[in-house]
Amino acid sequence: MIRFDEAMDIIIENTKILQKEKVFLPDALGRVLAEDIYADRDNPPADNSGMDGFAVRYEDIKGASEDSPAVLKIVAESKAGGELVKVEKGTAAYIYTGGLIPEGADTVVQKELTKVEDDKVFIFQELPEGSNIRPQGGDYRKGDLLIKSGKKIRSAELGILSSVNKPTVYVYREPVVGILTTGDEILDLGEPVTKLSQIRTSNTYSLYGQIKSMGAKPVILGFAKDDPEDIKEKLSYAESCDILLTTGGISVGEYDLVKDFVTDVLGVEILFWKVAQKPGKPVAFGVWGDKKEKLFFGIPGNPVAAMTVVETMVKPAVRKMRGESYIFDPVVKAKLSGGYKRKKAERLEFIKVSLELTDEGFVARAYKKQGSNILTSMLYADGFGLVDIGVKEIKDGEMIDVIVFDTDFMRKR
Amino acid sequence: MIRFDEAMDIIIENTKILQKEKVFLPDALGRVLAEDIYADRDNPPADNSGMDGFAVRYEDIKGASEDSPAVLKIVAESKAGGELVKVEKGTAAYIYTGGLIPEGADTVVQKELTKVEDDKVFIFQELPEGSNIRPQGGDYRKGDLLIKSGKKIRSAELGILSSVNKPTVYVYREPVVGILTTGDEILDLGEPVTKLSQIRTSNTYSLYGQIKSMGAKPVILGFAKDDPEDIKEKLSYAESCDILLTTGGISVGEYDLVKDFVTDVLGVEILFWKVAQKPGKPVAFGVWGDKKEKLFFGIPGNPVAAMTVVETMVKPAVRKMRGESYIFDPVVKAKLSGGYKRKKAERLEFIKVSLELTDEGFVARAYKKQGSNILTSMLYADGFGLVDIGVKEIKDGEMIDVIVFDTDFMRKR
Repeated sequence: MIRFDEAMDIIIENTKILQKEKVFLPDALGRVLAEDIYADRDNPPADNSGMDGFAVRYEDIKGASEDSPAVLKIVAESKAGGELVKVEKGTAAYIYTGGLIPEGADTVVQKELTKVEDDKVFIFQELPEGSNIRPQGGDYRKGDLLIKSGKKIRSAELGILSSVNKPTVYVYREPVVGILTTGDEILDLGEPVTKLSQIRTSNTYSLYGQIKSMGAKPVILGFAKDDPEDIKEKLSYAESCDILLTTGGISVGEYDLVKDFVTDVLGVEILFWKVAQKPGKPVAFGVWGDKKEKLFFGIPGNPVAAMTVVETMVKPAVRKMRGESYIFDPVVKAKLSGGYKRKKAERLEFIKVSLELTDEGFVARAYKKQGSNILTSMLYADGFGLVDIGVKEIKDGEMIDVIVFDTDFMRKR
Repeated sequence: MIRFDEAMDIIIENTKILQKEKVFLPDALGRVLAEDIYADRDNPPADNSGMDGFAVRYEDIKGASEDSPAVLKIVAESKAGGELVKVEKGTAAYIYTGGLIPEGADTVVQKELTKVEDDKVFIFQELPEGSNIRPQGGDYRKGDLLIKSGKKIRSAELGILSSVNKPTVYVYREPVVGILTTGDEILDLGEPVTKLSQIRTSNTYSLYGQIKSMGAKPVILGFAKDDPEDIKEKLSYAESCDILLTTGGISVGEYDLVKDFVTDVLGVEILFWKVAQKPGKPVAFGVWGDKKEKLFFGIPGNPVAAMTVVETMVKPAVRKMRGESYIFDPVVKAKLSGGYKRKKAERLEFIKVSLELTDEGFVARAYKKQGSNILTSMLYADGFGLVDIGVKEIKDGEMIDVIVFDTDFMRKR
C-alpha cells in the first residue's frame, strides 16, 4: 500500500499532454491554447481620440483662457472608422472617440471645454500637448507576443484572438473519459426495482458531471454485471477512450473482477493498487494503449469514495492531458470549526467540509456523516479537509489544509 | 450620474427570475434546481455489509479469540444485488460489500479476521454486535427532502438526482443574451482592413465568452454601422432575447445613437444613464418587453469598459434570472502590493489586478496599464480592485477590496 503523494507522482509521471487540434473560437473557451498568439497590427492601429471634442494644433491653443479663448475655424470631422483628415494652423476638426487624429493635429480638447458658433470653435483652456490622444500601439505593437501557448482561454483571450483575426485556434485536445459502472446490484435510471438489494446508480452520473466539469468528454460505457462475459464485452467499448474509469469490482472479494479483466482485455499494466487513503483505499491505476498513453483508474463503488478519487486523482491527470499549467485544485489553510476525531490514523483521510471565507480567513466545518456510502455528505461539501497519517484528532479551531473543489462558497456574504 | 451601488440596486430590483423548464440530467449540470427533490426509497434500501467477510450472529462469536476461535458452518452467500439469505445459530454466510445482511445475522466479521477450512469459518476475535453493518436509511430515508429548490446542480446533485430515479428535472431557464456591436470602425473576423481607422472587434467575442461562462446563452446579433436604418434593422433581431447588450454608440457624440433607438424600436424604458465608475461611466440600463421583464444594457465600446460592465453589472442580473442564490462574485480583502495612485477621485474605479493566495492572505497587484482601451490588461487580471470615490491613493501594502472574477489563481503553488 502506497501513500497518496506517491500515488499522485506515479499518476502524473505517466500522464501525457494530448495532441493539438484546431477549433473555432466558441469551442476554444475554457480550453488551453496550443500556439503562441502574435499581434497582426498595432493596436490602436493609429493615433486616435480618447474623447469627443476637437482636434487642434497645440500651438494654436497655447495660452487660451476664459478671457482670451483660442478661436479656430472648423474645417473637418474625424469619426471612428472615418478617413484621415487634415488640420492646418488656425483650424480645428470635430473629433469623436476613436476618430483618427487628423494630419497636423497633436492635441484633442474635450467638448466640455469648448463652445461652437457657426463654423468656429472657442477653446477656453490650454491643455498639455498630446492631451486625450491614444497613441498608435499603446495597447500592443505588431509582432508582439500577446498570449503564450499554454494559457487557458477565458473571455479576455477570446477578445484578443478576435482582435488579431484568429477565428480558429490550436488548443490541446480534451480527453475522452469512459465510465463503466459494474455491479449486479446497480440499476440505471428508469429501470424497475425488483429486489431489495438493488441500488439505483449515482456514480455513473456524478462521475459524468465531474468529468464534464473538469473539461473532459465523458462517455458512458454502460453497466456491467459481475459476470466475466459482460465485463469483457463492456470493456471492449473503451478502446476509443483516453482514460477508462470503472467503478466497483476492485476490492478483495471473489466477485471483484475488474482489475484482472482490464489487463486481459485492454492490456492495462497496473502500476499501483491500494493507497493509504480514506475513502478510496482499493483504487487501482494503470496505463494502456500502444504507447501506454492511456490511463486506467479502477475506482471503488462507494459513491463518496468514487467522487473523492475522481476529484483528487483523476482531475489532475485530466488537466495535465488538456494542457493546463496548474493541475491541482487549490489547497487553503482553514480553521476547523468543531474539530474532528477518528479512531485509526493509518491513512490520509479526506473529510467532507463546507467552507466559509471570513475576514480572518477560511473556516471549515466537517459534515456530520463521513461514511464513504453517504452521498448526501457531498451535497454539503466545498472541499476535502486533509487529516494526515498519524493524526487522530484535530481540535476545534486548529488549522487544517483543505483541497477546494468548488469556490462558489466565496460568493456568500 | 448615480453611484455604482445605486445602479446595482436598480438593476437587481428590475431583474426577474426566469420560468422553469425540464431538462435531462446532462443539461442540468451547472443549472439551478427549480423543484424540491425527495427520496423515493431508503438509502441504503436495507441493512448491508460495509466489508467482505462473514455475516454471523453476535452470540456465536462472543468470547472468540486466537486460542479459542468460534467455528461456524458456512451455509449461504450474500453478494451485492443478491437474494436475502438466512443464518441460524452456529452458522455463517459469506458476505460481500453491499450484500444484504442475512436474516438472523446481526454482525459482519471482515475476511482478514477469519480463516476458512472446507465449509467452516474460524473467527479469531469477538467484534461488537452490529459491526460492519451499514444500516437501512443510513444515508437518507424515503420521503426525506434531499435537495431544496434553488440549489445549483453540481456533480453530487447529479448523483443524488440519479439515485432517486430522476432522469429529468425542473431547472430555471437560462437567459438568452443578444450582443449587438455598433460602430462604423468595427470589422468582424475575416473582414479585410481597408482603412487605417478600422478596428477588428474584440468586444463581440469577449462578451460572448463572458455570457457563456456565466451560464447564459449568447446570441450574436451582429454588427451595426452608425446609421439609423442599420441600427434599427439589427435591433429588430433582438426580440427573442431576455437581455440585450449593445456595445458602442452610447456616449455624447452626434454619432452615438443607440440609446434613442432602443427606445424607439424596442420600447426600452431607460432607468439610468451614466454611473460614477471608471471604466464604464456612460453605461445605460433599461427594461423592455410586455411586462418590462427584459433588460437592456448599453455598454461603452472600449474593450475594458465593456468587459468590466459585463462582469460587474450584467453578471449579477444573469445569475438572478437563472435562479442563483449568490449572484455577486466574491469580494476578498487583499494586500495591494505596489500601491495605486490616481489624479481624480470622483468615480469608483475598477483596477485590473492579478491575485495570489499566500499563507498571510490574498495579495493583489495592479496591472501597469489601466486604460479602458488596453485589452491586454484583462489577460493578466483575476479581479477588479475597488478604489472608492474620494480615494486618490492606496499605499503599497494597504488592504483593498477585490471582486474576484476568476478563482483559478488559487491553484498556483
